[in-house]
Amino acid sequence: MGSVVRGYVTDFFTYETTKSVVVKSWTVGIINRVVQLLIITYFVGWVFIHEKSYQNQDTGIESSVMTKVKGFGDLNGELMDVADYVFPQQGAGIFCIMTKVILTKNQSRGTCAEVGSRFNCSKAEDCRQHFGTVLSNGVITGVCLTSGNDTEGFCEISGWCPAEDDRVEIKPMMDVENFTIFIKNSVRFPLFKVTRGNFLSTMTSDDIKKCTYHPKTNPYCPIFRVKDVLSYTNQTLSDLARKGGEIGINIEWKCNLDHGIEYCLPKYSFTRLDAPFAKNAISSGYNFRFAKYFMTENGTEFRTLHKAYAIRFDVMVTGNAGKFNTVQTLIHLVAAFTSVGLGTVLCDLILLNFLKGADQYKAKKFEEVSMAQIEASLSQSPDSQLSLKPGIKSAYDSGAISLATTCDQPI
Amino acid sequence: MGSVVRGYVTDFFTYETTKSVVVKSWTVGIINRVVQLLIITYFVGWVFIHEKSYQNQDTGIESSVMTKVKGFGDLNGELMDVADYVFPQQGAGIFCIMTKVILTKNQSRGTCAEVGSRFNCSKAEDCRQHFGTVLSNGVITGVCLTSGNDTEGFCEISGWCPAEDDRVEIKPMMDVENFTIFIKNSVRFPLFKVTRGNFLSTMTSDDIKKCTYHPKTNPYCPIFRVKDVLSYTNQTLSDLARKGGEIGINIEWKCNLDHGIEYCLPKYSFTRLDAPFAKNAISSGYNFRFAKYFMTENGTEFRTLHKAYAIRFDVMVTGNAGKFNTVQTLIHLVAAFTSVGLGTVLCDLILLNFLKGADQYKAKKFEEVSMAQIEASLSQSPDSQLSLKPGIKSAYDSGAISLATTCDQPI
Amino acid sequence: MGSVVRGYVTDFFTYETTKSVVVKSWTVGIINRVVQLLIITYFVGWVFIHEKSYQNQDTGIESSVMTKVKGFGDLNGELMDVADYVFPQQGAGIFCIMTKVILTKNQSRGTCAEVGSRFNCSKAEDCRQHFGTVLSNGVITGVCLTSGNDTEGFCEISGWCPAEDDRVEIKPMMDVENFTIFIKNSVRFPLFKVTRGNFLSTMTSDDIKKCTYHPKTNPYCPIFRVKDVLSYTNQTLSDLARKGGEIGINIEWKCNLDHGIEYCLPKYSFTRLDAPFAKNAISSGYNFRFAKYFMTENGTEFRTLHKAYAIRFDVMVTGNAGKFNTVQTLIHLVAAFTSVGLGTVLCDLILLNFLKGADQYKAKKFEEVSMAQIEASLSQSPDSQLSLKPGIKSAYDSGAISLATTCDQPI
Repeated sequence: MGSVVRGYVTDFFTYETTKSVVVKSWTVGIINRVVQLLIITYFVGWVFIHEKSYQNQDTGIESSVMTKVKGFGDLNGELMDVADYVFPQQGAGIFCIMTKVILTKNQSRGTCAEVGSRFNCSKAEDCRQHFGTVLSNGVITGVCLTSGNDTEGFCEISGWCPAEDDRVEIKPMMDVENFTIFIKNSVRFPLFKVTRGNFLSTMTSDDIKKCTYHPKTNPYCPIFRVKDVLSYTNQTLSDLARKGGEIGINIEWKCNLDHGIEYCLPKYSFTRLDAPFAKNAISSGYNFRFAKYFMTENGTEFRTLHKAYAIRFDVMVTGNAGKFNTVQTLIHLVAAFTSVGLGTVLCDLILLNFLKGADQYKAKKFEEVSMAQIEASLSQSPDSQLSLKPGIKSAYDSGAISLATTCDQPI
Repeated sequence: MGSVVRGYVTDFFTYETTKSVVVKSWTVGIINRVVQLLIITYFVGWVFIHEKSYQNQDTGIESSVMTKVKGFGDLNGELMDVADYVFPQQGAGIFCIMTKVILTKNQSRGTCAEVGSRFNCSKAEDCRQHFGTVLSNGVITGVCLTSGNDTEGFCEISGWCPAEDDRVEIKPMMDVENFTIFIKNSVRFPLFKVTRGNFLSTMTSDDIKKCTYHPKTNPYCPIFRVKDVLSYTNQTLSDLARKGGEIGINIEWKCNLDHGIEYCLPKYSFTRLDAPFAKNAISSGYNFRFAKYFMTENGTEFRTLHKAYAIRFDVMVTGNAGKFNTVQTLIHLVAAFTSVGLGTVLCDLILLNFLKGADQYKAKKFEEVSMAQIEASLSQSPDSQLSLKPGIKSAYDSGAISLATTCDQPI
Repeated sequence: MGSVVRGYVTDFFTYETTKSVVVKSWTVGIINRVVQLLIITYFVGWVFIHEKSYQNQDTGIESSVMTKVKGFGDLNGELMDVADYVFPQQGAGIFCIMTKVILTKNQSRGTCAEVGSRFNCSKAEDCRQHFGTVLSNGVITGVCLTSGNDTEGFCEISGWCPAEDDRVEIKPMMDVENFTIFIKNSVRFPLFKVTRGNFLSTMTSDDIKKCTYHPKTNPYCPIFRVKDVLSYTNQTLSDLARKGGEIGINIEWKCNLDHGIEYCLPKYSFTRLDAPFAKNAISSGYNFRFAKYFMTENGTEFRTLHKAYAIRFDVMVTGNAGKFNTVQTLIHLVAAFTSVGLGTVLCDLILLNFLKGADQYKAKKFEEVSMAQIEASLSQSPDSQLSLKPGIKSAYDSGAISLATTCDQPI
């Protein structure tokens, strides 16, 4: 019994390796080594150095953006400060700077004439065709007004009156060019528990107050002049201020944490977000409506409607961080080793088909066993097969067997 | 010296390939080819065609969403326009449309009676138990009011008075159904420097003004009727308008940039975001409070408190883009080739264990070397070992050696 | 013709496997098995159990956050409720709680004296040097005021007057500690079409109303006391309330959907977002300006400017979900099998270089074919080569050939 167990144990602790044919040929030898060199170069150069596949990547960047706009502008003769022209006021990552505003003062609920030639009428039917439209300033009542100076021949609406007339031409606030945007962005890579901010820690309070971002000379200053931002996107304020627009400020964090955290720095880029809509005339520009509500002494609400044209800035933060990781390194080393072996496919093709003496190589590389031989061997020498048995029965791992000789066998 | 170097060089440029056994058996031959076919089919069909693993993927989509709501509604007898019912007003990707509002007018700071049977009292102790509660409309002073028509028997609060009574029943604004939401979404895939907008570039300004989104007939129209959006999520306005709710509008970009950029198009889907909370009664609905502040002639601030029930729309943009990449293609081709070889594992198992003549196959496949043999050979023919030396000493790459014969060796 | 096709078919359905050398040596046998064990352990333990590589991962989490703050505070003698201190009011994922406010009442447009010693002057030149500054409360007119009690010796500005004086010391609202934040977060994993909310479905409306989040005792309660949140980030309200600050509330979803959806639960963590800026004095704190606009009886607009110091809370949702996937499982099983084979590299190195009888092992493992032999064989026995031909010509898959014997060949 003990010897059977010992036999199993002995058979288990064997080592199986492939039998190889070594070809001493300059042609295929050089091809082999060149292919191997190419594969190794690819793995070292691209996979390890360029793609940094020895690193673990954290792409789940957490980001928080705080902004603050500064500057004063003259809009239609009135001085505007940050509380007047920034929406929303609490310094979000997406904010608008109003560049032009059409005011409709003293609106209260009631009925009045709609504005614009689209709503001209001579009889009630002309107005009834507009029922349900969303292009008016209120609900079309179906009445065609027949009196009044400016209102005769216009459809009546019910809603906030007087109706807004947005056809007036207003000079936009060109001082926006000199406004500055301060961006405070803190990011966190949760996998590595690394937190970074978008100023250099060597910057003093004074540095930050005085600097202005410039891609070459001052790439880590968090204060951006609107004029510069627009010029980086190849836009001018005169285009944008009149109809509004959307600008993207992208902050990209590409951090190699193997190189020391101080090299984990932001990179800013700027795009015009409504560029893909340039061909569709309707969507050009950016505007929205809001109202300031007031109350008369006797408790009646009235409002000033604002149709605001604005430049919207979207601060978008993207990025990832990488750090050396044993598991990743091992996996890619294994892949590299496996791939080096794949050069054989190409070399075998050449060796066995295109080289002088290909048939001899084939003869060396391939040994054939056919059913006919096996059957012959089984019928001719049943004893020789039996003599194999003791060694075979324990070959449970795809066969580690004991044969005294291989060549002397009558196959 | 030169010949030694030449020897090294000669040995280096050799080619090593595995020695193979070719089995001419229909059973295992067919199994082998079927397994290989399955593996190739899997790689071609799933890995290459379905998963598009020959492409580089950019999942770091940058997105900017602008929205604009249009429509007029009647809320409690007052006509509401976009400046009245949309929050925030500047057209963000997350916005609310107010469907119902409970107004508490003319609030000013002071003390008054709390509202609601929870704050009924007969003596001060009844009120003191509420100290520190956040469920009241102000700070509980600890006084039980004993006079006044409506206020007798209620706890006193300090805060904005009169207290809000949100038990009133108000008819929600059902016109919300006919409101339209215009969504302008521009996305960018930074890796490929590709920018796309959510309208077709062939759409004219007029097309966009007139169209309404429909998943089948008009899938690229950026204007959505609220009624339709609710119906896609299997909701009706009557459910949502009374208590509020949250609707998700998902824009999915799956771009195959190998197919021309004009096929990179958005796909819209709609979900009810508060669905997972359906079981917890408290969290149903969506409401928030805001105030409009006014000032009397003598400089005292007063306000109108609004408890607004709203439908919140979250426009969420997800997506990725893929483009042919040589490196990705190579990596997956290598993986495919390696995997085809793995069919051998299964075939070996069958060949060496279940096939007739398995022992003969084993004898052919495996050649055994045991320590005993090696030791015998070492002691019997020390000269034969020495004669091997010149060829062995330079075998630095896991052994490219020179032997005149292999079979004639007395093993 | 038929026989040629049959020959091709026969040759195609052959099976090629590597010829192996089995080494019966305890040393290398044990090393081999130990290396294989390590590789298997790594794959089972790390790749399959720890990394769950048998799962498909969905990292494109879609999230919607709704918040609601409750509580009353006393700021400078005035009672503040949620409509007064939360910005924006509609319950967004990013919101601010105002802790301190500096009011400048009754501002109207005009000219007045700037505030602060920086703008002291004795002559107009002193003021002209400030032209274009964004640090003032309005546009510097270039006039140095020479009359008035408080204004003499200060530069004149044009803008909203009187100018804000933010040097006043105001006691922050310390009641913020007892405010509660209710967070409703619903997430969706689009790949698996799974939707989850951040309360347990077993929680009743009453549970949710009464509970307070605690990482150990109540980790799934969606109501957070501000004091607790601050303490989890090692901050105290007294630090933050005076200058403002930014707090991140991270909700992490790590869902193993193989374990039943009820185990897919949120995990909350808290960070101070402006921590990376601690070294740069300027950026400490968080404040913003907004105005409430009023109108006099005769239609003149005036405003109360608010410089609000606030604690900003950013609710950030991250996460991923995994689910069993046949393809992923297969790919990693293949990788595991391939890797087990890589133990051979190490064992070959030992076997062929460091083991007693290494040369004999080499002789067994490697068979050499050199050009000289091939050429000799080609010239000596051209007939034997010809006799091989019929079997060779159809060897299109890197050679499945028919040889009666291999050893008897005169090599």
